[in-house]
Amino acid sequence: MIGYATSLTAARRAFLLDLFPGDGCLLSTEGLAAFSADASRERAMPWAVVRPERREQLVELLRWAEAERMPVYPRARGTGRVGGAVPSCGGVVVSMLRMTGEPVVDADDFVAEVLPGVITADLQAACSAKGLFYPPDPASVRISTIGGNVATCAGGLRAVKYGVTRDWVLGVEAVLPGGRVLRTGGRSHKDVVGLDLTRLFVGSNGRLGLMTRITLKLIPLPETSASALVGFADLASSLAGAGAVFRAGVLPSACEFMDQGALEALRLDPEGAYMPVGPEAQAALLFKLDGSGPGVAAEMDRLTAALAPLGPVSVEIGRGQSEEMIWNVRRGVSPAAFRLAPDKLAEDIAVPRGRVAEAVERTREIGVAHGLRVLSFGHLGDGNIHINIMHDRSRPGEAAAAASAADEIFRLAVRLGGTISGEHGTGLTKATFADVQLGPDAVAVMRDVRRVFDPHEIMNPGKGW
Amino acid sequence: MIGYATSLTAARRAFLLDLFPGDGCLLSTEGLAAFSADASRERAMPWAVVRPERREQLVELLRWAEAERMPVYPRARGTGRVGGAVPSCGGVVVSMLRMTGEPVVDADDFVAEVLPGVITADLQAACSAKGLFYPPDPASVRISTIGGNVATCAGGLRAVKYGVTRDWVLGVEAVLPGGRVLRTGGRSHKDVVGLDLTRLFVGSNGRLGLMTRITLKLIPLPETSASALVGFADLASSLAGAGAVFRAGVLPSACEFMDQGALEALRLDPEGAYMPVGPEAQAALLFKLDGSGPGVAAEMDRLTAALAPLGPVSVEIGRGQSEEMIWNVRRGVSPAAFRLAPDKLAEDIAVPRGRVAEAVERTREIGVAHGLRVLSFGHLGDGNIHINIMHDRSRPGEAAAAASAADEIFRLAVRLGGTISGEHGTGLTKATFADVQLGPDAVAVMRDVRRVFDPHEIMNPGKGW
Repeated sequence: MIGYATSLTAARRAFLLDLFPGDGCLLSTEGLAAFSADASRERAMPWAVVRPERREQLVELLRWAEAERMPVYPRARGTGRVGGAVPSCGGVVVSMLRMTGEPVVDADDFVAEVLPGVITADLQAACSAKGLFYPPDPASVRISTIGGNVATCAGGLRAVKYGVTRDWVLGVEAVLPGGRVLRTGGRSHKDVVGLDLTRLFVGSNGRLGLMTRITLKLIPLPETSASALVGFADLASSLAGAGAVFRAGVLPSACEFMDQGALEALRLDPEGAYMPVGPEAQAALLFKLDGSGPGVAAEMDRLTAALAPLGPVSVEIGRGQSEEMIWNVRRGVSPAAFRLAPDKLAEDIAVPRGRVAEAVERTREIGVAHGLRVLSFGHLGDGNIHINIMHDRSRPGEAAAAASAADEIFRLAVRLGGTISGEHGTGLTKATFADVQLGPDAVAVMRDVRRVFDPHEIMNPGKGW
Repeated sequence: MIGYATSLTAARRAFLLDLFPGDGCLLSTEGLAAFSADASRERAMPWAVVRPERREQLVELLRWAEAERMPVYPRARGTGRVGGAVPSCGGVVVSMLRMTGEPVVDADDFVAEVLPGVITADLQAACSAKGLFYPPDPASVRISTIGGNVATCAGGLRAVKYGVTRDWVLGVEAVLPGGRVLRTGGRSHKDVVGLDLTRLFVGSNGRLGLMTRITLKLIPLPETSASALVGFADLASSLAGAGAVFRAGVLPSACEFMDQGALEALRLDPEGAYMPVGPEAQAALLFKLDGSGPGVAAEMDRLTAALAPLGPVSVEIGRGQSEEMIWNVRRGVSPAAFRLAPDKLAEDIAVPRGRVAEAVERTREIGVAHGLRVLSFGHLGDGNIHINIMHDRSRPGEAAAAASAADEIFRLAVRLGGTISGEHGTGLTKATFADVQLGPDAVAVMRDVRRVFDPHEIMNPGKGW
């Protein structure tokens, strides 16, 4: 076992206060509490929080932390849903939010160089202003950071056409435990020299080192987009509809799905919000197309033609402002779920696209068997389904039933050739299941690879693999 | 230093003959010679060549090879240009060509499962037949294999829009030294569980293990395409033209460039082949657009409008058969180069897209300073330039001058923030330069990561990093 530091001695405290002067180091209970949790229900108090502003501070910090065997937990906006940023073994939380500044967006190189604390939506805006496009679009885009997105390989709505964060990272600069600075890749769009350490950092959950600069690939901003929200009489027709659209040769930039529970939750809105899905619909699909004006128009025609044989009960096409309204319906699902029950377990399995129907149907049955309502919605296009297990913790046994249902759903995903996490990661809450999915051989390899970067396992410990 | 086996003893020979019966094991000088070289000028005789047909044979082979400290060199069609498959330290070449079979192409999952010996063009054809698309398109697509493409992270013509091989690999199965079988990823398009070992295998040059199955992501086949071959009066206008097209919001699936030397070589064709570039052109661009019919038409209008202010001297637009003829012009550059001189050093630097003009201009000057003609052409869209240093080895000093020019060109690429290899890799011929580009810290990390998979460094040794 790793012999971690067991407390923040006076000397360690003095070191941190010296390296991070002023409000750069937080030690008060109040200060620490604000950094003890993320968007999961997990919580653990760190011993200290530091807020670096320069790479040199991170070099000093990680030289010291390695010598002291001090656990270090990188953190940005804490939007993660699996406790990946929770300091579960004691130690120091490193808030990366002050490692920020105007992104360098280069319209000749089609590259952005970004500090990790930059908010992803701010980067997207800086790109748009120059006619450029950074496609990854996680739901948290307005609050989460590029550093957090890269550390977790954030996915989001546009992955079906444009891939995930991994596909847009050209290079990273990172400080490793012991204080070494590693630079990988660069501003060249192609590079095949050496092992691909760049992508190894993507999705590494802060376990290899602290990223201090990220180089991203950009493309031209699509001229326009249009969306379609299509209601279906039943689940089977909606899923068949998605297949028909892909088979018609249309590659939407987003292909989202809402099941009957999700629609019911939306319809319960006491204020009667805009709900352009026929009342008889039991499932809905939401497509977004982007590209040139004539290209999008042609693809929309092809898409609606492909859906017609499945007899959709409603078709709402949105362009411009009305497109945004359609997407607000989709954004409303997650909060609306609470109209069905006060608590939810939110999971995000992904399965091969052809197994989505089975996954959704079986998931609903697992809910029924546990006496719980399960809502399924999300990124159908890449088989990534968000599953909300609704329950009421105040009723005896319901929290346990929800946990048990989640367990079965994870096993179902793996059995269908899928994964227990399409985009949220495994963090603290799914650490054990990660090992089940990966198997002991792969976990052993991952651990050994991690130890190349972090021999004493001080980086974000307690998170499995 | 690693203490490798120094010869093929009788016992080792017997082991191989037993494991690979019949013509599965080659030991004759003639048989070995056929596997001693690749498309580079490098050559080294292996001690044995084996041709496995089943994964179990590879498990046995790598268990034995690790115990014997026997170097192992995976090889497919040998189209690599840098000696990456050359058995430079003695040992056993493993031809992966019999690890083949009909690709499993799944039109519901949008996934292909492929054995490593499958020819990439055969996979593409199997995909097209189902309306699906595997975009990576290296120049060697009709002869090279998926296994080789993944091991080298093959690039090609369509990378500017669709990325490289790396962006299409969802999972691999590999046999590691010692005989362990590792499985990563799977048929789910999204997966963020654990470190990204899948992409670590992509571009690993056979140095982590032997891949026995590869899972690839597919998309719908674009409905149509069109291409434009545009001549310019000078280099500067052509490169400005490429920038103008991107700035106009057009993302071509290919954006190729030919400099004055490349055009001159083409025009020297004694049979006067089809050459739809104005005789006064000193540079040319070749664009391909793909998508829906109306989308491609609209983008072609936008593309030609963006180029108009730069006063192109000729614009040839190709659709259907005439599109193929335009691309044959481009395919003719590499063989045509020999009309200028009998020998060439073919390199493939990549630089940030905005530095291409400088790279091409400086490269030409380096040639002049060495008394040599340098041709530049290739994948302008991702800054990946193929540079042919033409020379005549029969003239005293010219081979040395060419090597010296290549050395300067590599240093130039690194100085411009680029790489010494956009797609060919570094193999044997650029092993030393790879270390110059990467620096000792990154090389040390790569070596340690390799040792996790291959502690005794038996896999494809002698190739740097």
